[in-house]
Amino acid sequence: MSETGFNLSEYLKDRRDLFNQYLKAGLEEISAEPELVRAMQYSITAGGKRLRPVLCMAAAECVFGSMEKAIAPAVAIEMIHTYSLIHDDLPAMDNDDLRRGKPTCHKKFSEATAVLAGDALLTHAFSILSNPGLICEESLHPENPIRIISRISLAAGPEGMVSGQVMDMNALKNTDSKDLDYLKSMHAMKTGAMIMASVETGALAAGGDDQSVRRLSSYAENIGMAFQVADDILNVKGDPAVMGKAAGSDAAADKMTFPSILGLEASRKYAFDLVSKAIDSLASFGGRADALREIATYIIERDR
Amino acid sequence: MSETGFNLSEYLKDRRDLFNQYLKAGLEEISAEPELVRAMQYSITAGGKRLRPVLCMAAAECVFGSMEKAIAPAVAIEMIHTYSLIHDDLPAMDNDDLRRGKPTCHKKFSEATAVLAGDALLTHAFSILSNPGLICEESLHPENPIRIISRISLAAGPEGMVSGQVMDMNALKNTDSKDLDYLKSMHAMKTGAMIMASVETGALAAGGDDQSVRRLSSYAENIGMAFQVADDILNVKGDPAVMGKAAGSDAAADKMTFPSILGLEASRKYAFDLVSKAIDSLASFGGRADALREIATYIIERDR
Repeated sequence: MSETGFNLSEYLKDRRDLFNQYLKAGLEEISAEPELVRAMQYSITAGGKRLRPVLCMAAAECVFGSMEKAIAPAVAIEMIHTYSLIHDDLPAMDNDDLRRGKPTCHKKFSEATAVLAGDALLTHAFSILSNPGLICEESLHPENPIRIISRISLAAGPEGMVSGQVMDMNALKNTDSKDLDYLKSMHAMKTGAMIMASVETGALAAGGDDQSVRRLSSYAENIGMAFQVADDILNVKGDPAVMGKAAGSDAAADKMTFPSILGLEASRKYAFDLVSKAIDSLASFGGRADALREIATYIIERDR
Repeated sequence: MSETGFNLSEYLKDRRDLFNQYLKAGLEEISAEPELVRAMQYSITAGGKRLRPVLCMAAAECVFGSMEKAIAPAVAIEMIHTYSLIHDDLPAMDNDDLRRGKPTCHKKFSEATAVLAGDALLTHAFSILSNPGLICEESLHPENPIRIISRISLAAGPEGMVSGQVMDMNALKNTDSKDLDYLKSMHAMKTGAMIMASVETGALAAGGDDQSVRRLSSYAENIGMAFQVADDILNVKGDPAVMGKAAGSDAAADKMTFPSILGLEASRKYAFDLVSKAIDSLASFGGRADALREIATYIIERDR
């Protein structure tokens, strides 16, 4: 429990359980080739942190909405996040055999099935956004479904996440692009855009006004970057037994990271500054933003 | 020119030119990694027939709308069609080096870029559907954007095109699934669903009523299947110089086709029956459906 009396781990567990329940029901509704559905289910239930859905639901509560209002965008965003992991793991991309200690989708099924399971998750996300009743009876605010779809598709597409992945691949090839602006821009696109879309669409789904959406967006922009900085620091200093991968693997791979560019201490300070800015953006929400404040702090204090 | 005085080739050229103009402008608006945009542009301008966009625009005209009303769904659908071709061509899928006589996306760029270009085209389609002004000032009918997004995402996703591709892959593996129902169901999902979505969303975008949408949908269901039957017949009887591939390649690959199951004559009769049913569905549209009638006939009379 934190000093505000807020129990983050209980909060996260509650939200995850509720989210997972809706997600499970939504996946069972899909009428498709059984092998395809198995691959979709395998990857989306492989034990992620559900950070994006929790942020989406918490943002809905911040603007006086119910978290159920945000279930459809939360599910859609987690489907898109999962598709991006499946495709990133492919042999032609990062060529990873394991994710969260389990075989990656193309290892468990086949490469073709993994490509198609990713495609199916991405496309089905938009079916859910345009038919939120598929997931949750307490459906979206009727004013905003098109804005929600627009926000999510722009964040996930060539102007967001997909270009971030291209930048990440090119960073490994071009050692001359090792500068801070490139690193920040890559993370902003690869992960930041969808983290911003998570809180924005949660607030929009619950009927939040434009000013609230902008403040939450600024919060998300800062914690998204802080998350990446913290990841890089953990890779240098973390406990391999807790993280599930070797410390120092980034340096061994000559990967561009915040510590490799700024040094460890300046990276820590940068992460703290980002979290501080994120928390500042929440001032107008009072106690309703306690969960988001605790999440911001957790992001740089976690050990994996 | 046909006996109705309708000049199909001129009509198709006019529509294709208008469509390509909007598509080109839309692609130029994308602000993304240059390599990614090049791969997207390369594949979508590789010289397709633009059958789906033309059907979408023709359906809008059928319900007394302007074809410009249908530009956003037409562009989105062609982007989704192109993504599906890029991913189908990948080494893990059909492993094709050439498409329409040009190197496939993964041959021209890289496998990783091809995966991402497909992902980007699929996602950007939904950005266009939720921001039709990106493509064409004369935007969608304000009543229907969510129905259009729902229709396209369901047709393209796990309950449509993606499952069709899984069925196609499994058909090559399981020789015991060689029956007519399987073949029809595979084509209905792999190509039929998106052809149906093309005319339905064209009509919806132009403000068509539910009865018109249903009639156009029935037309599209029948011509979609006729197109596949005609393809299979062409593969047996076509002129390799015109088709750009060897005749008899399906039989050589022991591929399940309409002629292999029904025989050539019964396949021809089946294709004629489908086109006849398609034309019957258009009765209430009078002269406004001349283009769709001519397209239906063209589908089984074409030589490639």
